[in-house]
Amino acid sequence: MEELHLLLDDVSIITAMVTPFNDDNTQVDHERLALLIEHLLATGTEALLVGATTGEGPTLSKSEKLDLFKTTVAITHQRVPIIANVGSNNTQETIDFMNEVAEISGIDAALVVVPYYNKPNQAGLYAHFSTIAKLGKLPFLMYNIPSRTGVTMDVATTLRLALLPNVIGIKDCTGVTNLLALVHGTEGEDFAVYSGEDNYAFAAKAVGGNGVVSVASHIYGQEIAQMYHLIELGKVKDAAQIQMVLDPKIGALFATPSPSATKAVLADKGMPVGGVRLPLVMPSALEFETIKNTIDN
Amino acid sequence: MEELHLLLDDVSIITAMVTPFNDDNTQVDHERLALLIEHLLATGTEALLVGATTGEGPTLSKSEKLDLFKTTVAITHQRVPIIANVGSNNTQETIDFMNEVAEISGIDAALVVVPYYNKPNQAGLYAHFSTIAKLGKLPFLMYNIPSRTGVTMDVATTLRLALLPNVIGIKDCTGVTNLLALVHGTEGEDFAVYSGEDNYAFAAKAVGGNGVVSVASHIYGQEIAQMYHLIELGKVKDAAQIQMVLDPKIGALFATPSPSATKAVLADKGMPVGGVRLPLVMPSALEFETIKNTIDN
Amino acid sequence: MEELHLLLDDVSIITAMVTPFNDDNTQVDHERLALLIEHLLATGTEALLVGATTGEGPTLSKSEKLDLFKTTVAITHQRVPIIANVGSNNTQETIDFMNEVAEISGIDAALVVVPYYNKPNQAGLYAHFSTIAKLGKLPFLMYNIPSRTGVTMDVATTLRLALLPNVIGIKDCTGVTNLLALVHGTEGEDFAVYSGEDNYAFAAKAVGGNGVVSVASHIYGQEIAQMYHLIELGKVKDAAQIQMVLDPKIGALFATPSPSATKAVLADKGMPVGGVRLPLVMPSALEFETIKNTIDN
Amino acid sequence: MEELHLLLDDVSIITAMVTPFNDDNTQVDHERLALLIEHLLATGTEALLVGATTGEGPTLSKSEKLDLFKTTVAITHQRVPIIANVGSNNTQETIDFMNEVAEISGIDAALVVVPYYNKPNQAGLYAHFSTIAKLGKLPFLMYNIPSRTGVTMDVATTLRLALLPNVIGIKDCTGVTNLLALVHGTEGEDFAVYSGEDNYAFAAKAVGGNGVVSVASHIYGQEIAQMYHLIELGKVKDAAQIQMVLDPKIGALFATPSPSATKAVLADKGMPVGGVRLPLVMPSALEFETIKNTIDN
Repeated sequence: MEELHLLLDDVSIITAMVTPFNDDNTQVDHERLALLIEHLLATGTEALLVGATTGEGPTLSKSEKLDLFKTTVAITHQRVPIIANVGSNNTQETIDFMNEVAEISGIDAALVVVPYYNKPNQAGLYAHFSTIAKLGKLPFLMYNIPSRTGVTMDVATTLRLALLPNVIGIKDCTGVTNLLALVHGTEGEDFAVYSGEDNYAFAAKAVGGNGVVSVASHIYGQEIAQMYHLIELGKVKDAAQIQMVLDPKIGALFATPSPSATKAVLADKGMPVGGVRLPLVMPSALEFETIKNTIDN
Repeated sequence: MEELHLLLDDVSIITAMVTPFNDDNTQVDHERLALLIEHLLATGTEALLVGATTGEGPTLSKSEKLDLFKTTVAITHQRVPIIANVGSNNTQETIDFMNEVAEISGIDAALVVVPYYNKPNQAGLYAHFSTIAKLGKLPFLMYNIPSRTGVTMDVATTLRLALLPNVIGIKDCTGVTNLLALVHGTEGEDFAVYSGEDNYAFAAKAVGGNGVVSVASHIYGQEIAQMYHLIELGKVKDAAQIQMVLDPKIGALFATPSPSATKAVLADKGMPVGGVRLPLVMPSALEFETIKNTIDN
Repeated sequence: MEELHLLLDDVSIITAMVTPFNDDNTQVDHERLALLIEHLLATGTEALLVGATTGEGPTLSKSEKLDLFKTTVAITHQRVPIIANVGSNNTQETIDFMNEVAEISGIDAALVVVPYYNKPNQAGLYAHFSTIAKLGKLPFLMYNIPSRTGVTMDVATTLRLALLPNVIGIKDCTGVTNLLALVHGTEGEDFAVYSGEDNYAFAAKAVGGNGVVSVASHIYGQEIAQMYHLIELGKVKDAAQIQMVLDPKIGALFATPSPSATKAVLADKGMPVGGVRLPLVMPSALEFETIKNTIDN
Repeated sequence: MEELHLLLDDVSIITAMVTPFNDDNTQVDHERLALLIEHLLATGTEALLVGATTGEGPTLSKSEKLDLFKTTVAITHQRVPIIANVGSNNTQETIDFMNEVAEISGIDAALVVVPYYNKPNQAGLYAHFSTIAKLGKLPFLMYNIPSRTGVTMDVATTLRLALLPNVIGIKDCTGVTNLLALVHGTEGEDFAVYSGEDNYAFAAKAVGGNGVVSVASHIYGQEIAQMYHLIELGKVKDAAQIQMVLDPKIGALFATPSPSATKAVLADKGMPVGGVRLPLVMPSALEFETIKNTIDN
């Protein structure tokens, strides 16, 4: 774990990887997975987040997830850290699954989302994450995304949790105000702060955070890497310019429920990864035309 | 199913029942369940919704849910319709579970929520519910609650779905505008429109809907029944008055994440139903004091 | 005033009239005003609201407003009630202007908006309207439009104000829930409840309100009148159907800041009313093409 | 004007000054004004914004405003820059008033708000501010506050306007994301970026902005000055700590419509500045008790 902390210190771009399916979406396709991982590692991705929202975690069975994690470890072969999504809105179930995943050699950390749908308050959020930190066997990033979960984990709750062992960072989608507060509130601690929104990739780094957990890096990994390189060089205005160019393209990747547009664009660029499972559906022909126009523009 | 439609025609108050636990919350408590059901049937409840959000569906295991459904059927003994929550954000999993539940004799219908967290669009929502209507073996109410799911099912999508067999109604939390549109848009069809918010119990009935799927009916079933009786008598202003008196008390029942306050108030009134499971926590002493003040006022 | 109350009892459609300008927008154009009023009275309008938001009140000088009120009275010649907008975010200024307007013979009532920009609380709103009711010399409708003012007048505050003499009704833009509460909360009182949103024209009447203060009636007065006629006949579903057809067209009329699209559509239909004054601007050619497509569809 | 730009380069704390009234609020009280200005200049304030929202601009008559501006200039005697609020939702009226104010020797700049209530779109906002930049005789800060105006001026529109002569900066209340974008988007230009929210005072400076247009500086000017000093020294975490201590106190100052709580707290601290004018009202006794508890804590 010490090592993971050190590893994440150098990681600015974590890709929330799509899960490639075969053509009828009934199976995870290992061959396509291998091609996708090589593509990502060649274009800026510095760590992989597997089986999360972008990876259609909700419609993978438990055995599919375990298999996906193992295969990703095998293909990646320690070239970058692997983070496995284990979160749910049931604390005990999350711990049980985390500990099953912890048996897989090569999984470096977990992602644990703020519970969705049952809407705990701050006391419940603290109880949820601190119980997992105590009983779970993997270090983990928390994931705060109010638009999906219906609740917001406060900065104050996050800062209290950041002090616990095993709680190694956050993927945050609540905006730059909070990113700034988290960065300064955990200064000197071993706690990583990532934006979970590609639109805030620039901002997250510019205010001193670690970087972004990205979907856009499937397509624009090199541009994001270049943007982060410019920030490190102090060329902040040039970096901001890249974000502005990317913003509409990021919008296109989220024009239909994620990851449907990203999967469609990957296929269009010669990298088939199958469709999405219900209740998600792929972009209609008309929707895809608009997406493609923005992407190719 | 014809029969259920007829039954629901006379049902204004469906209680979304809490799931009683034993004192350490490790087991569903059948004795407490039996007492609770008798209390509800004696105080206005005309149908039971089991294992839903209020029933802590997210933290019940599958076998606990099946057991809960069976026990509820046995205790209720056909006195009121029983609706079993089977929804999830995975279409296939929902169908599989619905069909397992359909094997239980005495389950009259299911509740199927709009998928939470993975945020399908309208096309995905139509695909989700229409696939379940086709492959599932229970008639069902849809459940539209944007504050929990992060997406809103449009009136237009709902009206299209209302035409399908097996889709027998909706529990809606999107406000009175939509309730009105759904009521008039399905006039003459066999489609039930319930508010899923106790605050709109009056409004739902006043605009011609069927009534409410209620949490407050655990405590205020008689008041809600009286309110609906007054509406039927044409004494609408008197009915509105009851809603206004109830509104702050309903607020108190939702002051901490549901059903924690309702469980605490039931215990305080001599009907222990255990605590809640993580990630939910019970009201703090201070929170409960405020809740109790409003309830007892 | 008694008479106005009686008059409003029969008024379902109040048109919030645009103010016709000459071609360079420097003058109110009386000839165009006369043609416009004849058009409105011939197509369903039952009362005129003059110099309000749609009438570009913020960019009319005080003398232009007084002149506009007088001219409208002269043209209308008691065929329908005339309501003059006198509201501002300064209580004293509102009273002074109301009392100046009250000198104009033929003005039946005023419209007084919830103060915008300085954001009073409920106590301030009560003080504002009750002071005007006491010191002002015209009966008035209140106007509650949070999207423009930044504050919402609560139902409770409105019901208290409804008891005061001179406070004869409300133009409300806070949705059907509140319309319903206002209708039932003022049952038996002489208080008129209008929707201030064309999208809720059907709903306002269906829940027992008086009708709508409309912008769309510049173009669709006959359709709205027909819709209201159907509700009175009990053909509620047919009426709802008209609203659904109108909804996208209403959307088009508000696609650019009101009343710019309405003025452009009127001109396109052969009834020139000039442009709008800064800070508003007319629709661009591209914007107007989209608007026209929706209107003419 | 060149000089003002230079002056603002050194200004981090602009106080949006309350307007002191006499005891019955009928007159601006010049003696109290003089005491207030001395207090502000002694406690961190580096420039004065006069007659703005905090200064109850909406309920000052035009002659009161002109008189207030002149008196402030006389009292301040060039010790700090003076910025006069001249904005309204009527472009022509804004220009006329700006040019009348420009005649007052000693007014360094104006504040011009995004038009409230009539809700222009981006094209209208560009037309509004660029017309004022062209025809107005004072350099000005723009003021973007969606919660009061109902519209948001986009970053893109702001950046276009920032290129115009006379447009010297912005007071922005749209959050840290936009502050960051404005700071980097105007790098190298002579354009000042201030937060208009005291809660973002730290963030505005931490991301490279000029500072804050503050209300809290009436009470906490020294603390804000100390916070900014720490940021300049690179002690960012210590600075963030001050903001966290101030946040609930800032909340208290806005617990009732601004500036009513600030005026009440000033009086409580021995600096009477009168009450507020309708439609605003002073805090009730109960409200003030809560405010005072938070302030004095």
